[in-house]
Amino acid sequence: MAVNAANVPAEIREFLTVPTPDSWVREAASRIPELLLDHANCELKAASTALGFLYRYPERSPLAQRMSRLAREELRHFEQVRALMAEYDVPFERLTASRYAGGLRDAVRPDEPEKLLDMLLVGALIEARSCERFARVAPALPAKLRDFYLGLLASEARHFRHYLAFARSECGATEADIEERLAELKAIEASLVTEPDPEFRFHSGAPVADRAADAAANSP
Amino acid sequence: MAVNAANVPAEIREFLTVPTPDSWVREAASRIPELLLDHANCELKAASTALGFLYRYPERSPLAQRMSRLAREELRHFEQVRALMAEYDVPFERLTASRYAGGLRDAVRPDEPEKLLDMLLVGALIEARSCERFARVAPALPAKLRDFYLGLLASEARHFRHYLAFARSECGATEADIEERLAELKAIEASLVTEPDPEFRFHSGAPVADRAADAAANSP
Repeated sequence: MAVNAANVPAEIREFLTVPTPDSWVREAASRIPELLLDHANCELKAASTALGFLYRYPERSPLAQRMSRLAREELRHFEQVRALMAEYDVPFERLTASRYAGGLRDAVRPDEPEKLLDMLLVGALIEARSCERFARVAPALPAKLRDFYLGLLASEARHFRHYLAFARSECGATEADIEERLAELKAIEASLVTEPDPEFRFHSGAPVADRAADAAANSP
Repeated sequence: MAVNAANVPAEIREFLTVPTPDSWVREAASRIPELLLDHANCELKAASTALGFLYRYPERSPLAQRMSRLAREELRHFEQVRALMAEYDVPFERLTASRYAGGLRDAVRPDEPEKLLDMLLVGALIEARSCERFARVAPALPAKLRDFYLGLLASEARHFRHYLAFARSECGATEADIEERLAELKAIEASLVTEPDPEFRFHSGAPVADRAADAAANSP
């Protein structure tokens, strides 16, 4: 079964090296409680990440103002997911973090200005992937969740553009430097979302149990 | 010179053991750049503190939802202060934190449920004091800042009430327990804002250089 990718905005589809495996989309549609629980965690972490920029680079006013607004938006989404969890009777449960964000953060270089550049590019990648996953999974969800997820697409795409614009404006890197570094980070990101992953999360890789089915679906 | 305290909401005046020293109000009016810089820091820290509750107590849904909204409001204030700093040409500078919040946090007991109770009571105290200081300093500031600070009173008072309500609803403590613990924390808070403080900050104590003037003003 191929999963409709028509909702993914073109700029996001072009930016990401690989699409989310169809097997992840099928898994997500059958694991809505974990999807929502982990999604709430992701919104909270996205807000914290944005606040991290305020603490680390408070002298960069346009970045600080934008990241504060971005954190507010992520928190509003957090509240919306929590409200949907209540509506769908999803009991709260602590979930471990997926390997995804940690795997990308491990690639951030430790010294400035490379560190800021990498953090902004990683931010752009995470927002782009989140946007793509919302678009991919939405049609497979009950109506209310589908509408909510489709409603998030525009803001995720906007966050993606903000991160990318700051990578260009704040770090003194040339376009060639940025493209080269982006290619490296995109390759890491692509493995994280396509390599087999024993754990299901919002940003997890291909579900392990579904590998055979995927191989069959992808054969000509 | 006594400083007009008429703007302080009655519930806040009754809650706090001592008023802010007049000498702090005079100092603040003459150190507007540091006042704004430290105020921006305080809003950011207030947002982070609220997020801390989301990470530590995610299973407490009403608390999580409220703290997320509270964090959003603090971030909006952060952005407003930063915008005013730009308008008043206040160059960005890193300031060390005042002794205030750290001094209160040191008093938080390490084990649950006392820890949550103490953190909520400390939150109530900080919001109450912030409200009182906005009210006290506002009349001594240029018109635009005065109006901004007076505009913050209502939300600080609201945050104060939320923290106090959660202290009552979330910790299983009796009203007597809460009153007893509040009395202890209020005493610590009172020393932090009235004892001589070599550093000027939004929550600092009595300015050291102004002690003689204060003593003279307070003599009959």
